[in-house]
Parts: sequence; structure tokens; C-alpha cells
Amino acid sequence: MEKRVITALIALGIFLPLLYEGGIGLRTLFLLLSTVGIYEFFQMKKMNIFSVEGVLTILATLSFLFSQRPLVALPRGIDYFFIYFLIVMLLMALTVYKSDQFSFEDAAFCSLISLYVGGGFSGILFVRSISFGMAIFVFLIIWGTDSFAYIFGRKFGKHKLAPEISPNKTIEGSIGGVIGSLGLGLLVVPFYNPVNFSVLEFVFLIVSLSVFGQLGDLVESAYKRQFNVKDSGKLFPGHGGVLDRFDSTFFAMFMFQILYKFFGNN
Amino acid sequence: MEKRVITALIALGIFLPLLYEGGIGLRTLFLLLSTVGIYEFFQMKKMNIFSVEGVLTILATLSFLFSQRPLVALPRGIDYFFIYFLIVMLLMALTVYKSDQFSFEDAAFCSLISLYVGGGFSGILFVRSISFGMAIFVFLIIWGTDSFAYIFGRKFGKHKLAPEISPNKTIEGSIGGVIGSLGLGLLVVPFYNPVNFSVLEFVFLIVSLSVFGQLGDLVESAYKRQFNVKDSGKLFPGHGGVLDRFDSTFFAMFMFQILYKFFGNN
Repeated sequence: MEKRVITALIALGIFLPLLYEGGIGLRTLFLLLSTVGIYEFFQMKKMNIFSVEGVLTILATLSFLFSQRPLVALPRGIDYFFIYFLIVMLLMALTVYKSDQFSFEDAAFCSLISLYVGGGFSGILFVRSISFGMAIFVFLIIWGTDSFAYIFGRKFGKHKLAPEISPNKTIEGSIGGVIGSLGLGLLVVPFYNPVNFSVLEFVFLIVSLSVFGQLGDLVESAYKRQFNVKDSGKLFPGHGGVLDRFDSTFFAMFMFQILYKFFGNN
Repeated sequence: MEKRVITALIALGIFLPLLYEGGIGLRTLFLLLSTVGIYEFFQMKKMNIFSVEGVLTILATLSFLFSQRPLVALPRGIDYFFIYFLIVMLLMALTVYKSDQFSFEDAAFCSLISLYVGGGFSGILFVRSISFGMAIFVFLIIWGTDSFAYIFGRKFGKHKLAPEISPNKTIEGSIGGVIGSLGLGLLVVPFYNPVNFSVLEFVFLIVSLSVFGQLGDLVESAYKRQFNVKDSGKLFPGHGGVLDRFDSTFFAMFMFQILYKFFGNN
């Protein structure tokens, strides 16, 4: 437990200033974290990251980190998604070149994990590009959900949520996570309101973030169970790997992006 | 052989008028062909298309067909790729709900095939959106490559190109395909020139289309061999399925899109 707290403090001590500054520092941090995330996936599937497919997958992942504000000027109509698609085509071509070692399904695995990890971190960059306050607010909801789900589950948990995948989670805990983070949001908003949403939109936003955060958590549990590992990696002592730490974030941030673009441009 | 010719004539009799008209007719044809293409992939992997994952995969594929000129107005910043990503997230969520039947790798397979098939047909729509002449020109190069590779391979073929995957293809045939289609392009251009490219760009375009067309062909051979099937389907008697007929097209059309956007907007 002590190790867990120390790790969290050190990680936050690095992360928060970089999140505040935004720009190249934050992007570099995410470049590194994405690479580690892809490495963790390769480890789980017992694939070698020091290979053509490893390099291509990392490049495909990084292409998303330039999706919000490109550092390099691309011709009109060529966006990050084209770069991603081009790399996926190369991964498919690799199944020809290494036909006995690298299958179509391996190419599919590589293209999905780069979408998942790259898209997730790019979601955080999007939130940060709105404002620092907005980013903090969204993280507050995601991390709040985790903590409230834990507390409520401990206290009232009776009915299992997904016993096959994550035996400790309960429906009571999950609902508690949503209610708790909604309460947290309502508590914070009078002091600083980063979203100019109506009350209804505001409630909808928080509930969505909370639900999708929990969904992201379950998705990670599902693939970890499938690959038969407990933690995705060891980067954060007491917390596991990059994928363990950002599982809820990936899903929630992406949902935020969609909701914000649908309702938020006012 | 006779069956093959009749099928080709009927297919061209339907395809060419729709390609000429463009618009909703062509889009509808591609909606149908994409669905059949996805069905063929599901058959190969022995997955059931009449399932949640089947429906989601088809929807993800179709989302690309609206990428060039959307029929529905989406909010600013929400593009086809967001829709695709959203559906991929739902496929990942399905691994939680159906944890014993639908794995992370299955979700990856579904997301790659929808990118491949949807992206391929969307590439044809892009070429057609430039002009009918341009579309015909590109198809001429792709189909010309096939024919010349066959003729040259028969006559001069000695060295195997990829014996593990496609035992009949030879390096001589492959080079003949490139040279033949380059000759065809140069023959056609004085009469009608759909591309305002310089000679060098023009040669580069044809060689790329020819090489990527052949690459697309090999990629298909690789996954058919892996799934242990001869044809991807039976839609076109004598020609096989949708994936058999459009294998070169998918890769070549995508390459065309990239090249055109890099060089072509002049």
C-alpha cells in the first residue's frame, strides 16, 4: 500500500506539471507511454517488439499523437488516419513477406492495439487542448469513479458485475461509482465550471464518462484474463503497467471527445 | 473459361453504368459488395455473421463508404473515422459481454477487415469523385497489370515470386505486369489524359498502382492460404468472391488516394 502511494505521488508529480504545460513535453511523455503500452501488449501475446511488426505498430500508434495539432504539415486531405491506414497496409503486406511467422490475425492484433493505445492518448491531448481545467475535471471524474466504486463495493457489494472476468467487481460498486462521481462533479462545478453545458448535458457527460471508464476497465480485465496475466506490466510499482493505469482513461477520453464534439462547441 | 467471360460481361454491364453515374447507385452497389466481402471473411474464419459482432463489423465497414461525401451531416470534427472508432470500441466491449466466445483477437480481426474492405471501396469512390475518366484509367492500369503479368509469366516466367503463398506467380510475370501497364498508360494518355501530372509523376503513379495492385493480390493469397480456402466466395462464377475480385483494387486504390493527395491537387 505504501509503495502504491509513493508511486502515485511520483507519477502525479511528473504528470500534472506536464499536463499543465501541455505542448511538446506532454506529447513526449505520451510518446514514451504509448511505446511502453505497445510493448506490454507484445509481451502478453509473446511477440517480439524488436521486429518489423514491432516498429510498424509503434509508428501506427504514434501517428495518433499528432492527430490534434500536427507538428509536421501534411498535404491537404492527408491526415493522421491516412498515415495509420498506410502502416496497417504495410502490416498486411508483412503477412506476405513473413508468411510463416506473421499471420493476418497478427496484423489485426497490431492494428487494433495501436488504435486503442494511440486513440486513447490522443483523447487526453484533445481534452488538454480545450483547457487544463477541463482535463483535470475529466480525470477527477474517472479517478473518482474508481475510488467510489471501490468504497461502495466494499460496503454494499452483493451482486457480481462480471464474475468471469473481474471477480471482485459488484453491481453495487459500479452504481456507487457513477453516483459518487456525479456528486463529486456537482460539488466541484460551483467553484469552477470548465464545461458550458446545461445541467442535463452535464449529468449526461459525467454519467457517460463514469460508465465508459468502468467499461474500459472491464475490457482490460477481459484481455488480461485471456492472455493469462495479472498485470499488463511493471512500470508503476504497485499499480502495474501503462495499460493497467490508463485502461479507464482510454475509453472515457474517447467518449468525452465524441460528446464534446456533439454538444460542446457552444 | 466461357463461364468466366460471361460473368465478367454481366458484372461489367452492371458496374460500368453505375460507375459512370456515380452517386447513390454506385454507393448502394458498394454497400452490398462490402457486406458480401465481410460475409466472406466471416465464413473463412468460421464466424457467424448473424451476430452482434457481424452487425457491428458491417456497420464499421459501411461507415467508410460515407467518408468521401457524407449523406448525413455530422457535427464539426466528427468524421467517418470517429464512427469507425466508436464501433471498434463497441467490439472491444463485446469481449466483456461475450467473454467466453468473442476474444480480443476476434475484435481485432473484425476491426481490420472492416478497415480493409471499407477503406478499399471508399478508395474507389474517391477516384470516381475526381472523374469517371480517372476511375477508368486507374482500373485500366490495375486490370492491365493482371493481364500482362499473366501473359509475361506464361511466356518468360522462370523465377518464383512467392512460392509459399502463390506458387504460380513469377518475378518475370510481375515485372511484365508493371512494364505492360506502363506501356498501356502511355498508349492511352495521348488520347485522353485524366491526370495533369508531369511525365515523371505519371510514371511514378502507374508503377505504384501496378506494384500495389500486385501486393494486394499477394496479401489476399496469404490470408486465403492461412484460412485454407481456394476462393473467398462464389458471388462471381469463374472469378470467386468479392475479395477475389477486388484484392488488387483495394490496395491500389488506397495508394492512388495517397499519391493523388500528395501530388495531384494542381
